[in-house]
Amino acid sequence: MRLATSTDFGLRVLMRLAAAPGAALSTGRIADELQVSAHHLAKVVRALGRGSFVGSQRGRHGGLQLARPAEAITVGEVVRHLEQRFAMVECFRADGGHCVLAPSCRLKPQLALAREAFMQALDQTTIADCAWPGAGLPIGAASAH
Amino acid sequence: MRLATSTDFGLRVLMRLAAAPGAALSTGRIADELQVSAHHLAKVVRALGRGSFVGSQRGRHGGLQLARPAEAITVGEVVRHLEQRFAMVECFRADGGHCVLAPSCRLKPQLALAREAFMQALDQTTIADCAWPGAGLPIGAASAH
Repeated sequence: MRLATSTDFGLRVLMRLAAAPGAALSTGRIADELQVSAHHLAKVVRALGRGSFVGSQRGRHGGLQLARPAEAITVGEVVRHLEQRFAMVECFRADGGHCVLAPSCRLKPQLALAREAFMQALDQTTIADCAWPGAGLPIGAASAH
Repeated sequence: MRLATSTDFGLRVLMRLAAAPGAALSTGRIADELQVSAHHLAKVVRALGRGSFVGSQRGRHGGLQLARPAEAITVGEVVRHLEQRFAMVECFRADGGHCVLAPSCRLKPQLALAREAFMQALDQTTIADCAWPGAGLPIGAASAH
């Protein structure tokens, strides 16, 4: 079973922000620290914004911040939000897919229960539990974008 | 979260075979019934064979059979086997990946626990519970391969 790379990156961003309460970090700086593509990270950050997990402040000292205390954000709700556009298997697609077993399938409900068990396990952990203090880059080393 | 298409197809094959104990069905016939590519299904069947879930009989009346009673095969063990080459996120790769959080990451153990909760939920269901009797194609309608 796989989570999308964008979900993985989204969790890393939140884990980084959780270790910097009160500060505002640019997407470019976080990308530098995480050593991942700033372009890819910007897309992930927009998805985190749509989920009300992060907010951004404009201006010279602007940047990203958690929209809520890290203790109030569970890993489960982040994963549910970022994975919502991915179907676990074909029959979980919005259009229902084309599996010929679909009308009488006795596996689908069991897969749904198992997915819920996965998410509920992740509901037990908050972003605060996973805070990551960063790579200790000096401010000047981070990209300006 | 996603399962591979090959895992999905592998489960469908076992669900079909579970409804035909004592019979031997060709991969081509199963592909026709499932309306999926016989080429793709043949690869999945080889993976199921490596996991000792299916065996094949050669000859005119040959074909695939479950290698064990359907009641003795859990969905969880099938999914574990077919998904073993896929890493849930980067740090679960065999080479460890390149995530800079890896040495001090507090999320990875929680992801591993959640994955185990998913698999344990699927351990509660056997292939027999999900048997699918097929599309009722007449024998002559199935491909010979």
